[in-house]
Amino acid sequence: MAGNPERRLKHWGWGYEDQQPAHEEVEAAANAMREHLGFGNGVVERPVALAAVELRAPRIEAPAPLSAICRTDTYERASHALGKSYRDVVRGLRGEFEMPPDVVAHPRDESEIEAVLEWCEHAGAVAIPFGGGTSVVGGVEPALPDDRPAVTIDLRALDRVLDVDERSLAARIAAGATGPGLEGQLRPHGLTLRHFPQSFEYSTLGGWVATRAGGHFATGPTHIDDLVESIRAITPRRLPASGAGPSPDRLLMGSEGVLGVITEAWVRVRRRPGYRASAGVGFPTFDAGAEAVRALGQSGLEPSNCRLLDPAEAALTGAAAMAGQALLVLGFESADHPLDAWLARALELCADHGGTPAGEPKLRRPEDDPGERRGQSEGAWRDAFLQAPYLRDTLVAAGILSETFETAITWDRFGAFVAGVREAAERAVSSICGEGKVTCRLTHAYPDGAAPYFTVLAPARRGSELEQWAEVKTAATESVISAGGTITHHHAVGRDHRPGYDRQRPDIFAVALRAAKAALDPAGVLNPGVLIDP
Amino acid sequence: MAGNPERRLKHWGWGYEDQQPAHEEVEAAANAMREHLGFGNGVVERPVALAAVELRAPRIEAPAPLSAICRTDTYERASHALGKSYRDVVRGLRGEFEMPPDVVAHPRDESEIEAVLEWCEHAGAVAIPFGGGTSVVGGVEPALPDDRPAVTIDLRALDRVLDVDERSLAARIAAGATGPGLEGQLRPHGLTLRHFPQSFEYSTLGGWVATRAGGHFATGPTHIDDLVESIRAITPRRLPASGAGPSPDRLLMGSEGVLGVITEAWVRVRRRPGYRASAGVGFPTFDAGAEAVRALGQSGLEPSNCRLLDPAEAALTGAAAMAGQALLVLGFESADHPLDAWLARALELCADHGGTPAGEPKLRRPEDDPGERRGQSEGAWRDAFLQAPYLRDTLVAAGILSETFETAITWDRFGAFVAGVREAAERAVSSICGEGKVTCRLTHAYPDGAAPYFTVLAPARRGSELEQWAEVKTAATESVISAGGTITHHHAVGRDHRPGYDRQRPDIFAVALRAAKAALDPAGVLNPGVLIDP
Repeated sequence: MAGNPERRLKHWGWGYEDQQPAHEEVEAAANAMREHLGFGNGVVERPVALAAVELRAPRIEAPAPLSAICRTDTYERASHALGKSYRDVVRGLRGEFEMPPDVVAHPRDESEIEAVLEWCEHAGAVAIPFGGGTSVVGGVEPALPDDRPAVTIDLRALDRVLDVDERSLAARIAAGATGPGLEGQLRPHGLTLRHFPQSFEYSTLGGWVATRAGGHFATGPTHIDDLVESIRAITPRRLPASGAGPSPDRLLMGSEGVLGVITEAWVRVRRRPGYRASAGVGFPTFDAGAEAVRALGQSGLEPSNCRLLDPAEAALTGAAAMAGQALLVLGFESADHPLDAWLARALELCADHGGTPAGEPKLRRPEDDPGERRGQSEGAWRDAFLQAPYLRDTLVAAGILSETFETAITWDRFGAFVAGVREAAERAVSSICGEGKVTCRLTHAYPDGAAPYFTVLAPARRGSELEQWAEVKTAATESVISAGGTITHHHAVGRDHRPGYDRQRPDIFAVALRAAKAALDPAGVLNPGVLIDP
Repeated sequence: MAGNPERRLKHWGWGYEDQQPAHEEVEAAANAMREHLGFGNGVVERPVALAAVELRAPRIEAPAPLSAICRTDTYERASHALGKSYRDVVRGLRGEFEMPPDVVAHPRDESEIEAVLEWCEHAGAVAIPFGGGTSVVGGVEPALPDDRPAVTIDLRALDRVLDVDERSLAARIAAGATGPGLEGQLRPHGLTLRHFPQSFEYSTLGGWVATRAGGHFATGPTHIDDLVESIRAITPRRLPASGAGPSPDRLLMGSEGVLGVITEAWVRVRRRPGYRASAGVGFPTFDAGAEAVRALGQSGLEPSNCRLLDPAEAALTGAAAMAGQALLVLGFESADHPLDAWLARALELCADHGGTPAGEPKLRRPEDDPGERRGQSEGAWRDAFLQAPYLRDTLVAAGILSETFETAITWDRFGAFVAGVREAAERAVSSICGEGKVTCRLTHAYPDGAAPYFTVLAPARRGSELEQWAEVKTAATESVISAGGTITHHHAVGRDHRPGYDRQRPDIFAVALRAAKAALDPAGVLNPGVLIDP
């Protein structure tokens, strides 16, 4: 069902089954990691094979008209039981699927989605919309507040680019299309959505819209919100929404499946960029680099890439030109014009804040050899970016706890905030795990603030990983919220971020959202536990 | 109450009382207009003096604790009875205030707003939030669906810039601050919001947020939506919203006073631009100019000004360099860097589509003489832009019907859409008024479409203006909607656009919005008739 019918996604971790390295390779990688980090322990675990996974029996059966699109086999139910957070991978690797969906439905069109929702409502079941299943916040797990049976609605059969408007640079795309899937269909038109979240390979347009995903653009229109023209959704109360105005869409964006099932969206696409300009810039400290990021974010130059890695992250991604320095990965791209003036001014701003170029800047024009397309720092960083989720599977096997959390903060509080959260996270891992490393990067730069992204790596205690993870998560949430950061920048709320979200969300909006949900989903069928309680 | 206590706004038209020209000057201007247009008739009307205005008696009295901030005199009630559309000015000039508010409240802080809302709820009155009163869509007129008394809440006493965060380039501003008021307070910090709707001189931040106002920037972040960090509002159900997340704000933006009274917002400001680059570019036809606007909108250059005037509008604003040509008014600005490369590429794109420069481009740097700040085309156009609403008062006096309507359309349907709407509007004025002129400009350029803005001028039949206007409005609405344009781009919905909005708004969103309103405003106190019915 997922893109390539020849290949099957792993039921427990990141990527396809045929991408899972042999155990010896995992061991070699795990040992290298352990050596690099200085911790990690015990044998390198093997994933529990699907054949050994036991699930509770389904508590509900699809009615005959829907049986053709409904599955209850172990692979289907296990592979839809969890998202892809550290916590999920730990459980998946060990074959612990306590609350799998009872049925997985694969509707092929809107009428089948309507039929599934209708069935759920009449059968007293809940419905969980499912795109790529890459949630790292418990957004797709049937961990329900009550014991209703759960039907997961996998939308990946709706994977077509339905319309391309080359004059307006817009495309109508079905919600189940994955990143590579939709890019592949846009490419013959010379167009691209250029929305590259880290989950790009597997996550879907509908999932991006439902979670307000952040793309890889560091400035300018980068959240999927900025790229959406209009949305269609199906709600239990059967009124399909053709997003005529922007406000209805803003209610669906970020609704995480609690108001309706997003079926398609018109999105803004762009011509494939032929001009690129990029450079790596080293800074003596993370704070100095952050000052440059602030200047760049407020300059109006709108770099497409403007990621600042602290010295430890720069070393981890292999992108550090000068050891011990923070690294700014800076890039511009355009389908329209050369970017020499843009990059030159950006490098001036970097120099103003103590930055020194790490190697020669790269300027690429459409006529240049495509093999030479990116500067070294940018290329190395991008490869590491897309590999990170695969790495998580190996970290789990190696007994290394990993957690990432991201937030946003205005520039006036930036320095103290990053220092405080880092310190609190370091204190937490050292008390919870004995030792550990906390690193930070800036993923997005706004005129008024930035999005710091923290990575925590620590030795896990076998068998206690979930408790350790929960303690680390609680400490991270507390430090972020008490220092005034947002509970999430682009990972969404799901079930894992509910405690923080409930504290940050204005009460008045909870009242309005609850009322809207009650009106659209009177039986409370959709994704209970996520975002808000009835 | 409105900014300068020494000056009082006209109770019937645009601007301050002391800006109203002597009758002889109005006559001279009216005759010049009539000559230019070739129509307009009869004597030039004088406004009915305030002393001659008779209003129905107030049907409600403020309770003692609120009496200090409540007014019922004729000036207060008349000057809050209408907005500033053609229809409003016709009625205002004639002294026809059929449905004035019964009481005008001038709260000075949030607690007084709460007290007024509480009083309204208990007294069975409705409450109408009022900023600058510049609505052109019936957004502030107490034309109510029932006979409850009306209390207008004038927010202009809340006019302070409350906080300036120079590091994050953000400011917290009270909802009643007008354009010049907030710019004056930001200027000592070297900062500016640079949100310039045509109503800039009188409209307020709260009004902009409530109506999702469009600024004068032609591309990039131009709607107030793009500039808002967070919003505070007071609702009848007393839960003040501190906008912690973006979604709550998106529900308030464009809510036009039906969900709550917006009291303040954190907004993104910017450093005052010292670099400017501008040029006028002539095009043989409007369509050729529109192709250039599309190329510019899709180029990523993000000009701050990119307005295309058709030949007739170019002539009217006195900005036409070459008679019979469409004129593109093109401008860039930056606080950070020279814009030579930006303007050069933009002019290349214009030349690709048949554009020829109208005079020399202007490039200004911070060290240049500020007197020389703008190119001739841009300067002439901007003066005309801010003068237009004053002109409307004179048009009414001269017996000339005027109506503007604006919409947005994607590029794939652009050419046929503009031609079709123009033709339908021309057909309508010629059948309704005997003759008339319809002109068009593009005010905003997006990668996926543009916002055409139409102006209709026609000879009015004295005494039948309102009927004529209603017929023209209905025809314009019908032509826009049936050709697939949005019912409004930035003028909002109010009461005048309800028929079109009701057709365009997805039913499902009406259900959600109605539920949210019922939850926040259970007694239906706030601005009934606007946007949605309970």
